[in-house]
Amino acid sequence: MFDTVKSLKRVDRATYEQRLPELRVELLNAQFDLREADFPVVVLVAGNDRIGCNEAVRTLHEWMDARYLPTYPFVSATEEERERPRFWRYWRVLPRRGQMALLVGGWAHGLIGDRVRRRLNKKAFDRQIEHAIAFERSLANEGTLLLKFWLHLEEKDLEGRLERARNDPDENWRVTAMDAALYERWDEVMPVADRFVTSTHTEQNPWQVISSGDTRTRSLRIAESVLEALRSGPPKPPAAPAVPDPTDGQPPPALESADLTTSTTKARYEKDLPKWQRRLRRLVTRARKERLSPVLVFEGWDAAGKGGAIRRITAALDVTDYRVVPIAAPNEAERNRHYLWRFWTRLPRDGHVLIFDRSWYGRVLVERVEGFAAPEAWTRAYEEIRDFESQLTESGSPLLKFWLHIDPSTQLERFQARETTPYKKYKITDDDYRNRGRWEEYVGAVDRMIAETSTKRAPWHVVPANDKRSARITVLKTICRALEKALDK
Amino acid sequence: MFDTVKSLKRVDRATYEQRLPELRVELLNAQFDLREADFPVVVLVAGNDRIGCNEAVRTLHEWMDARYLPTYPFVSATEEERERPRFWRYWRVLPRRGQMALLVGGWAHGLIGDRVRRRLNKKAFDRQIEHAIAFERSLANEGTLLLKFWLHLEEKDLEGRLERARNDPDENWRVTAMDAALYERWDEVMPVADRFVTSTHTEQNPWQVISSGDTRTRSLRIAESVLEALRSGPPKPPAAPAVPDPTDGQPPPALESADLTTSTTKARYEKDLPKWQRRLRRLVTRARKERLSPVLVFEGWDAAGKGGAIRRITAALDVTDYRVVPIAAPNEAERNRHYLWRFWTRLPRDGHVLIFDRSWYGRVLVERVEGFAAPEAWTRAYEEIRDFESQLTESGSPLLKFWLHIDPSTQLERFQARETTPYKKYKITDDDYRNRGRWEEYVGAVDRMIAETSTKRAPWHVVPANDKRSARITVLKTICRALEKALDK
Repeated sequence: MFDTVKSLKRVDRATYEQRLPELRVELLNAQFDLREADFPVVVLVAGNDRIGCNEAVRTLHEWMDARYLPTYPFVSATEEERERPRFWRYWRVLPRRGQMALLVGGWAHGLIGDRVRRRLNKKAFDRQIEHAIAFERSLANEGTLLLKFWLHLEEKDLEGRLERARNDPDENWRVTAMDAALYERWDEVMPVADRFVTSTHTEQNPWQVISSGDTRTRSLRIAESVLEALRSGPPKPPAAPAVPDPTDGQPPPALESADLTTSTTKARYEKDLPKWQRRLRRLVTRARKERLSPVLVFEGWDAAGKGGAIRRITAALDVTDYRVVPIAAPNEAERNRHYLWRFWTRLPRDGHVLIFDRSWYGRVLVERVEGFAAPEAWTRAYEEIRDFESQLTESGSPLLKFWLHIDPSTQLERFQARETTPYKKYKITDDDYRNRGRWEEYVGAVDRMIAETSTKRAPWHVVPANDKRSARITVLKTICRALEKALDK
Repeated sequence: MFDTVKSLKRVDRATYEQRLPELRVELLNAQFDLREADFPVVVLVAGNDRIGCNEAVRTLHEWMDARYLPTYPFVSATEEERERPRFWRYWRVLPRRGQMALLVGGWAHGLIGDRVRRRLNKKAFDRQIEHAIAFERSLANEGTLLLKFWLHLEEKDLEGRLERARNDPDENWRVTAMDAALYERWDEVMPVADRFVTSTHTEQNPWQVISSGDTRTRSLRIAESVLEALRSGPPKPPAAPAVPDPTDGQPPPALESADLTTSTTKARYEKDLPKWQRRLRRLVTRARKERLSPVLVFEGWDAAGKGGAIRRITAALDVTDYRVVPIAAPNEAERNRHYLWRFWTRLPRDGHVLIFDRSWYGRVLVERVEGFAAPEAWTRAYEEIRDFESQLTESGSPLLKFWLHIDPSTQLERFQARETTPYKKYKITDDDYRNRGRWEEYVGAVDRMIAETSTKRAPWHVVPANDKRSARITVLKTICRALEKALDK
């Protein structure tokens, strides 16, 4: 991958000096126009020339309006970052539409560094590469302009650069132990870097490998590339046809197989509820000590009893142990970013239970059925969601997903009951009644969702909920059993 | 302070059970109405009954809609929190208008705990109490509905509660070492708690001291108080007359004393610039090692050269060392919170330089002159800003504030020059010309700002900037000298 760099032509001083004044004007103007654009820009600057990466970013700061170039140097992860899946720290800083962010090192240096230091074994490294590819693909598909620069130095040039920097009193403070290590462990680092860059060099998100030996050439190539990209905007994502719902050869639709006649007597419920709550409480205390962070996702029909089921969970826990995140329409900051951003940024620290009352599945449910997401967007979402959830479970979050299932007549009864109950009245709107007209469409969307996103580590649990009592007990039981399994590992 | 609690009447079971169903309906409805309200709600639950605090919050979760009660249990600070001033973690979670947050322990437990553990000496504790009072006052003045509950237990009741909890297999997991310590060190803890609660029990933000011995009484009192407050909204802040600008007995106006004829030759500048940049670079490297986080604030007339001065600083530094924060009109999330929220939440981690291109001083400049802030709001702001800045400097951030000063004719020349320079053209709008009509009003606002907010640890530096070169050198010099002073300590 890095061999190609040798054949690239150097930019001579005259060309550079002739081009520069105009280039700077063009860059500033393109940056100004970006504010009105409907896409965000992420520029990842990485490479085996760490000093060069910093220089390149400094040049961009000088040539562009540095006030609108928030820059994130990803050095060692903070405690809050270490307690979340690896990509949390990158999601956290994603810019909104009309904004640009410079990420220095980013997931490239993070993964290569951890592999070289043996914090990732080969299998884990490969898995993280898959996550990196999925992350970049999803950003691009959702309209982010993503540019990736790899600043490459040959071994002898790196040696020379370190030597010169060490002898220059204005520069030697920049030479860190890591720079020295990079050179000294060249034979270990470069195969890992090559593997990373080659694997993540996709048609949609290619690396631009740039020779870092000559400052003028490097600066000009990066700046021209940024300029061109700002002007043309993100490339159209590859035409991915919307995949129609499969019609046969599938497992029986999940909803149809749910037994809605399931029920529990009041007496039985009053005995079982405290029993399972006590069990849950003890398990959560253990989970906290083991630093597991269970994530519970509640989806289901309106009036299926999500809120009631959640209350039976939280009543058993200490307030320091959990957080409930209700998901409604996205706010302004959320609307202007990738649809998963608001979920990623809310992930819990180690040892906390996070409960989503509705979730990222809105993408393939309400957004699909109501037409808020285009067919290619929601069909793509299954894969994006699988990747997101696998990062959660791989980083130690048991993930449980519940679909609370009722039939249309039960729903109608509950709507009508709510209208006469003063403290629940506010939950009913005209929309709720209107949505009933699309019941069958939603059934199709739910069945497909369950088929596409039930994985071994994050299965869906369809909970018959015509009888609220049995639904609540089922939910509690399911969580307890999953936690027991996770804790026994 | 805690003696009053003994005389309060218990709520008997009959009263409780009669009131409860209606109370819950009313709470839910009040919570629903809050969504449309134009104020945020912060409920602080603290006390020497830690188990009781958690129970009380759980009860609120059960009686209200827990999805809209984000709850922040402030246990030990994370690394990211420890690297900022103490109140950062509370600012960070402040709700927006129409939202309510429950803070458990909060600054009360934080300060009392740190004093008892001798992490704060008496003087530092007193200072933090002042910050707490200022924080609460400012929240209330800016329209936050702030409720503070102190759940009090007598020594013998705490003993009994611990005993019972330890013997109850469903409860003993809740008893932490801290609960036991609280009881064992009663004679140390209670005077500190009493001092804190008494000092922060102000007319505007009183504590509601509630006997925690009887669960029904406690739950009902808290819930009724929350309900009443939600219904009536935040009290009107005490009538604080706008304080007119002083007219005499003042130091000479700062702007008038600035010598705008100051200038530097090009030759001199080209010698001085790299010299001071090199010095700055070395100082910032040292500051980073000492974990100092310099905060630089740039204010000044339009076209005074803020951007150019900032670029001469950043060009000297490594991109990992600094962040530039441009301040423009607040976005939606910012508009719906306290005006200092967007500055607090951007404070740097230890060892980073943070540069504000315009700042919180907008409150007493543009917002004052253009009438966006009411007179009582901007006159109050001086005190709020002094408190904010003192928290910054006390936590190890050298704070430098620059006013870049030019005269109106220089400004006009620069506007006109910009209109013919292609890459700066975008900086000029009709507003810029319009603002010139209010020059004298701005002069008055700047003079008052400097008089009110120049403190020993955070003085204003008025930089004559008709000559850009000399302005840039002055800024660099001033930063270097301040850093040297801070590092010598």
